Amino acid sequence: MENIKVAMEKHLDNLTKPRGSLGKLEGYCIKLADIQGKVPPEIKNKGIYVFAGDHGIAAEGVSLYPQEVTRQMVLNILRGGAGINALATGTNWEINLVDAGVLGDEFPPDSELKPLCNFIRARETKGSRNFYKESALTKEELQKSLEQGKRLARDAAAKNYGLTAIGDLGIGNTSTAAAMLVAAGFDPNDMVDRGTGIDAPMLDHKKHIIIDSVKRRNPAKTGESILENLGSSDLAMMTGFILGLENLKIGCVLDGFPVTSAAYIAWMINPKVSNWLFAGHLSKVAGHKPALERMGLEPIVSLDMRLGEGTGAVIGGHIIELGVLAARNMASFSEAHITDSEKQEEKY
Amino acid sequence: MENIKVAMEKHLDNLTKPRGSLGKLEGYCIKLADIQGKVPPEIKNKGIYVFAGDHGIAAEGVSLYPQEVTRQMVLNILRGGAGINALATGTNWEINLVDAGVLGDEFPPDSELKPLCNFIRARETKGSRNFYKESALTKEELQKSLEQGKRLARDAAAKNYGLTAIGDLGIGNTSTAAAMLVAAGFDPNDMVDRGTGIDAPMLDHKKHIIIDSVKRRNPAKTGESILENLGSSDLAMMTGFILGLENLKIGCVLDGFPVTSAAYIAWMINPKVSNWLFAGHLSKVAGHKPALERMGLEPIVSLDMRLGEGTGAVIGGHIIELGVLAARNMASFSEAHITDSEKQEEKY
Repeated sequence: MENIKVAMEKHLDNLTKPRGSLGKLEGYCIKLADIQGKVPPEIKNKGIYVFAGDHGIAAEGVSLYPQEVTRQMVLNILRGGAGINALATGTNWEINLVDAGVLGDEFPPDSELKPLCNFIRARETKGSRNFYKESALTKEELQKSLEQGKRLARDAAAKNYGLTAIGDLGIGNTSTAAAMLVAAGFDPNDMVDRGTGIDAPMLDHKKHIIIDSVKRRNPAKTGESILENLGSSDLAMMTGFILGLENLKIGCVLDGFPVTSAAYIAWMINPKVSNWLFAGHLSKVAGHKPALERMGLEPIVSLDMRLGEGTGAVIGGHIIELGVLAARNMASFSEAHITDSEKQEEKY
Repeated sequence: MENIKVAMEKHLDNLTKPRGSLGKLEGYCIKLADIQGKVPPEIKNKGIYVFAGDHGIAAEGVSLYPQEVTRQMVLNILRGGAGINALATGTNWEINLVDAGVLGDEFPPDSELKPLCNFIRARETKGSRNFYKESALTKEELQKSLEQGKRLARDAAAKNYGLTAIGDLGIGNTSTAAAMLVAAGFDPNDMVDRGTGIDAPMLDHKKHIIIDSVKRRNPAKTGESILENLGSSDLAMMTGFILGLENLKIGCVLDGFPVTSAAYIAWMINPKVSNWLFAGHLSKVAGHKPALERMGLEPIVSLDMRLGEGTGAVIGGHIIELGVLAARNMASFSEAHITDSEKQEEKY
């Protein structure tokens, strides 16, 4: 709402600093004030949801990691040993790890796992099907996955998160993301990435599989059809989560390419989602930038990361929080008895 | 030392992530390991030194803020109401505010001020002289200021800071910074900034004063001569601080344009300083970028900030710490029983 934005700008202009001198931090505050309907915005606690799922397309040899690594990495996060554990601790995020369709049996009970973060068992599948050969999800799996995502948005509201973030984990998920975005109309040459040393024949193979899969499945150009044909349960849950945040007054910070592909599908379904989304970072994966740009989202940091798990989102999201801390805790000119200048051209 | 860098890279490659996937965070870790001589590096606590000082050049009408604001802002920081207070709290930095030559009487004793951060009384002057009319500092003031800076570097070592940062505060300090860098050979058109709305006549006036001052003082092209003729006590203390860190195994994160100008002078005196410097951010002040580039420093974040006080340095420095946290706390592949891939082309 325009009046909230104006009120937030006025609040910022009264703080003891040259007008506008907190730069983009002020823009993040204004956006979050608008999302929360609150001047200044408030972040009592922050929660990241890391959606882990397996991807049938891995069977086509598009990834050099074996699929079992998805499950191993879930256990690594539960034990506190992954990148996201270190970075979320250093930026005060609570981790919610979601089993959104990991291959194999259900994980052992918490009493046995003794997880060091919230573990949410939400699987509707044991991974997606290989979309080179058949539809990734059934209509029912898709609907249930979207519903799980929406349920988790309500979980975020119940946990009183002032800011949320999304991370991804799953062997093959960049191939799924690329296929979805190619189906949505992006150029395959912009979506399929060399990574850090994939050789030319392997890149050609990956690109061929993705282009051919899109042709074979030939989905309608709707978010739902793309998810059903070329998506996965974990990415569909992210889409549902983002859609489900509408009217909950909660912002959401995106991580890298897979998360952004799910956000793009949400944006196709409801373009208003970009009003409550932030781009946490720009990753080193090629397709990330054009997808963010199409949604009008500018990345907060650009650190050449390509780890996933939400590691970029927690960094960018923490910078949003720093803006909020400044807005809430800085003194005004009158409180601090500081001479304001009507003309604030020069930094002090 | 090369062997430290190699050992640090090896340490990072054993962690449960695709090789290199923490991007620039890995580079920061490697640089800090090299500075500390320790694999992995360690940051038990971090300290920022905010150098406050007045600048005689303000008398020439180059700033629209009255000079009394320097003193008012010192009190604001001591009371916890400034931007740096909010951002340092949110990023776990200890603040050391240095009276490095504020105009007027000595500040009241701590018993009266009840400061909310460390307050270091280190003034050698009551502000610099107006370099449009005379040398900014005497030789003796310059030497004492450099010595104070070196003493503060030893203070940082005594406080066991694993990482330090520098912030600036003082009406007119961007004009001083611009004059020093013009004297060092930079193009005045790149150094004198419009700010956020300074009109064309005022910009011309500021540029004229700076160019004319450099001609009038005509210093030798050495760091010391530039500081004496066109510098200030606060900027000289920053230069001394940076020079003084040599052999102390402590990294230092720079803030914006004034701090970077002092670092540039240090770099002219001893080009090795860039080995222990990090550029915390790229500010919106025009001269910042070329000065950093000449020293081979790449900014960590770019958030269009122009507040000073170290507000950009604490954000960038916190991202360095996140890299260190990952390096220290992530599990290795063998600890986590995760299948490593010799070929790590694909992100998981």
